[in-house]
Amino acid sequence: MTAFVRDQWYVAAYSGEVARDLLARTILGEPIVFYRTEDGASVVALADRCVHRRYPLSASSLENDTVVCGYHGFTYDPTGTCVRVPGQTRIPRTARVRSYPVVEQDSLVWVWIGDPDRADPTAIPRARHLDSPGWSTVRGMEPIDADYGLLVDNLLDLSHETYLHNGYIGTPEVAETPIATSVDDEAHIVRVSRRMDDAACPPFYARSTGIDGRITRRQDIEYFAPCLYLLHSRISPVGDPTRAYHTEITYAITPSAPGKVYDFWAVSRDFATDDVELDTFLHDFNRDVVIQDVDALNLLQRTLDSEPDGYQELSINIDAGALAARRVLAAMTAGAADGASASAAGSAPGSASASASPPSSSSASASASASVTG
Amino acid sequence: MTAFVRDQWYVAAYSGEVARDLLARTILGEPIVFYRTEDGASVVALADRCVHRRYPLSASSLENDTVVCGYHGFTYDPTGTCVRVPGQTRIPRTARVRSYPVVEQDSLVWVWIGDPDRADPTAIPRARHLDSPGWSTVRGMEPIDADYGLLVDNLLDLSHETYLHNGYIGTPEVAETPIATSVDDEAHIVRVSRRMDDAACPPFYARSTGIDGRITRRQDIEYFAPCLYLLHSRISPVGDPTRAYHTEITYAITPSAPGKVYDFWAVSRDFATDDVELDTFLHDFNRDVVIQDVDALNLLQRTLDSEPDGYQELSINIDAGALAARRVLAAMTAGAADGASASAAGSAPGSASASASPPSSSSASASASASVTG
Amino acid sequence: MTAFVRDQWYVAAYSGEVARDLLARTILGEPIVFYRTEDGASVVALADRCVHRRYPLSASSLENDTVVCGYHGFTYDPTGTCVRVPGQTRIPRTARVRSYPVVEQDSLVWVWIGDPDRADPTAIPRARHLDSPGWSTVRGMEPIDADYGLLVDNLLDLSHETYLHNGYIGTPEVAETPIATSVDDEAHIVRVSRRMDDAACPPFYARSTGIDGRITRRQDIEYFAPCLYLLHSRISPVGDPTRAYHTEITYAITPSAPGKVYDFWAVSRDFATDDVELDTFLHDFNRDVVIQDVDALNLLQRTLDSEPDGYQELSINIDAGALAARRVLAAMTAGAADGASASAAGSAPGSASASASPPSSSSASASASASVTG
Repeated sequence: MTAFVRDQWYVAAYSGEVARDLLARTILGEPIVFYRTEDGASVVALADRCVHRRYPLSASSLENDTVVCGYHGFTYDPTGTCVRVPGQTRIPRTARVRSYPVVEQDSLVWVWIGDPDRADPTAIPRARHLDSPGWSTVRGMEPIDADYGLLVDNLLDLSHETYLHNGYIGTPEVAETPIATSVDDEAHIVRVSRRMDDAACPPFYARSTGIDGRITRRQDIEYFAPCLYLLHSRISPVGDPTRAYHTEITYAITPSAPGKVYDFWAVSRDFATDDVELDTFLHDFNRDVVIQDVDALNLLQRTLDSEPDGYQELSINIDAGALAARRVLAAMTAGAADGASASAAGSAPGSASASASPPSSSSASASASASVTG
Repeated sequence: MTAFVRDQWYVAAYSGEVARDLLARTILGEPIVFYRTEDGASVVALADRCVHRRYPLSASSLENDTVVCGYHGFTYDPTGTCVRVPGQTRIPRTARVRSYPVVEQDSLVWVWIGDPDRADPTAIPRARHLDSPGWSTVRGMEPIDADYGLLVDNLLDLSHETYLHNGYIGTPEVAETPIATSVDDEAHIVRVSRRMDDAACPPFYARSTGIDGRITRRQDIEYFAPCLYLLHSRISPVGDPTRAYHTEITYAITPSAPGKVYDFWAVSRDFATDDVELDTFLHDFNRDVVIQDVDALNLLQRTLDSEPDGYQELSINIDAGALAARRVLAAMTAGAADGASASAAGSAPGSASASASPPSSSSASASASASVTG
Repeated sequence: MTAFVRDQWYVAAYSGEVARDLLARTILGEPIVFYRTEDGASVVALADRCVHRRYPLSASSLENDTVVCGYHGFTYDPTGTCVRVPGQTRIPRTARVRSYPVVEQDSLVWVWIGDPDRADPTAIPRARHLDSPGWSTVRGMEPIDADYGLLVDNLLDLSHETYLHNGYIGTPEVAETPIATSVDDEAHIVRVSRRMDDAACPPFYARSTGIDGRITRRQDIEYFAPCLYLLHSRISPVGDPTRAYHTEITYAITPSAPGKVYDFWAVSRDFATDDVELDTFLHDFNRDVVIQDVDALNLLQRTLDSEPDGYQELSINIDAGALAARRVLAAMTAGAADGASASAAGSAPGSASASASPPSSSSASASASASVTG
């Protein structure tokens, strides 16, 4: 399993998901209940366990801005302080649940997992297109029963579009075209670019733009490890660079628990922004694509879970982006004070190492990873 | 998990459940098959495993008063002695399954789990109202996927009626009213009383008694640890003590396996005993209440199972009865000859200790229990 | 669990099951994907894991005689050699998945599990009646969630027909009639015979042959450990030996994973071979019988899984065939080079030993097996 990166912001929900119903999400193994205050102004995030007998507060109810435990009525204010207990007026001074720093930005609810003193809202990566004039966005969220590292692998290596998403967003050129990869180690950003000068236009773009011939297609990935992935997509008809369509595909990758991840996805466009039918098409079509990934990653995780200890991967040029992302994630966890996290930091999805070293012999080690520069 | 108390009687079934179909129940981890002899006079309880290949006898069939194994025909009489095997006339002398002492009393089938030489039928606590003239009873049984200690906690602290059973049997006064607790350590009985002089009448009582105003309501719990719980309930209209309604709520608590418990519940009344419609109302309404508990305890157990090791509870005055019950159960298992049971005896549900000591700092220990006398 | 016997042929599928759809089967814990080449001439068996990221090739697609991984397009030829990867022309030399020796014979697809250099097609036991003129066969396959040793036990001790399959293929005489057992230790064959001179005719035979009186019935089992079981069944009306009906019941026993086994079953007859209605009757009726076994073995495995460590069996004369089969299987695994397999070789289903020694006291050991010669 890929180690969790703590002391980080993660997307917990879309702003629109958090209202006056209690919303339960588990993030990096921490159960959290979310709700919006009556004035609508702020989102509250509390540990989802009553101090009394550990009953989940998410199975409770709101009374104004307080949460009333559904089992015995312990009542908490938005800071997590218990303000009422049954049968007595004195409140134990230790009756308090943890509250989490929350920031709403770009229509996303970000929560800080780690030491609250280190929570710096300015460190949250931006996705302004999700909530800006001149842009229209469709979105959804799918939980996946897979290590979040498998989702990172998936998104950083788009050659799979050709096979897993054939007939949707993939064409032969995606897998055929080499990539360029760069890493900003300090900012924890991995960039992967692929430029296809003359490619078939997949149905996703043909139907959304009306282009019926071949296209120039450019994919520019920015992965802000560990939490946010942006795919800047630009297409235009071959030979007509002025007729360009710009789409931003956003993924927020939020590890839920070991082997579980929330896959927040959004498709934003700067054209035909008032076209409601296009909204419906893009939502449904992209959701189909996401479900193809969900099914594949669920299958892959079940497969890896049933492998005997120490299986082997074989990496090639096309994996450069995903391997770079693994290295960045490993460095982020290695930097943590927690020794246990640090020791696990080097582990990529599965038990294979993520080094992009020259190909090792397959007999050398059952858990070796081979990489080929072909 | 709460340790099991062996050398004890437990309710295995209602008398009406045991007939000529084989009935399988697992009690304190022991699989047992029950059936009634042809003359109807006695209930047989045998270990639910054929000596041959461990096939469950509950998947077999009766032939007169013998059980014929459904796989290869090994046949057992009511004492558990094998009286027939396939292909030969000689019966191996070791071919015998364990039989369990059984007592039918108060419409309950009690089975003894432990050393049969210590089985004393006079030690079985009585619930005469279940089977006495002048009383009418509705009943049911729900299996719960929770430590039986969570059910004991639930029943000993009725403040939860106000929150979990609001609109059914709970009103604000239940949670607001302090309790009186006493313990008979020798007889292993915990008593909890709550007297509400002027309380709202919950639908359960309003519809069964016809009272439409406020009531005097008295709850007197007797918990015969570990197996039987009686709630003597008396209500009357405020100011009219002569118009009193007496209801006996009975729970038999039978641990099935670690994390599993049978919840036998019954509601008996000494008024309107011939009212069949009232029977239906009380059965369905109380079953709804029980299912609320079942759902909550299933949820709570799943929640506790997912907690990292060593979680904290915080106890308050209202928990005095439940904490007393935990102490009595711990003492009963500590008294057992079995060292393994004894070492686990101090463990309350979860890993928290059950001491009613003054509040400890929440930072002192991840598994401490804090109690406040407010 | 019964240890697996490696360096052996196992039935992976019926010939008719392997076509141009990818077929996934797990055999002795090894995930394998099967398909037929375009010319129809041969069956390909490859390790069901892409070398790249372990995606199951069975979730992929065929392109002529190659398999194209459904995730990133790694493409394999029938030898398991990778012939195409995305984004580059150079194929890493270690890009190869294991291919398995396959033999099609008697309408069965046999696969070799173990060292390919030791695969000798002439060692495959024959079941010529499955694919010979003058014979008609109905067949099916049921996966069972049980140790394959439980299926061997089941098939070697047909006394269970009387109880589990009463009204189908069992009559009292099967359980009542002693058996004769012989073992060919070198060829790993266990033979069990039962001759019933005057027996009731069960519905299975009454309806297929038209006999309406009592029969002479002979059951001759040949178990070619570990993989193939033949039951040569001959019946004729009592006193009319010339009117004989010959049925061959075939079981291929293919361990899938620990606690899982594929149960291939077939019924072949040399009479009324063109009777299509009889085909339907025999298929459906025998499938009902097989499902009775499946249900019983699933139940038995769940039961054994929940037993505390070290349970006891009690064996009698009728178990001689099954105990002999356990000994042969134990010897085959003990002979393996693999020390780990060898150490587990003595274990019969469950933890009981399979020795046919005189009855031991039931108090001697919690995991002893007692055998009685009555």
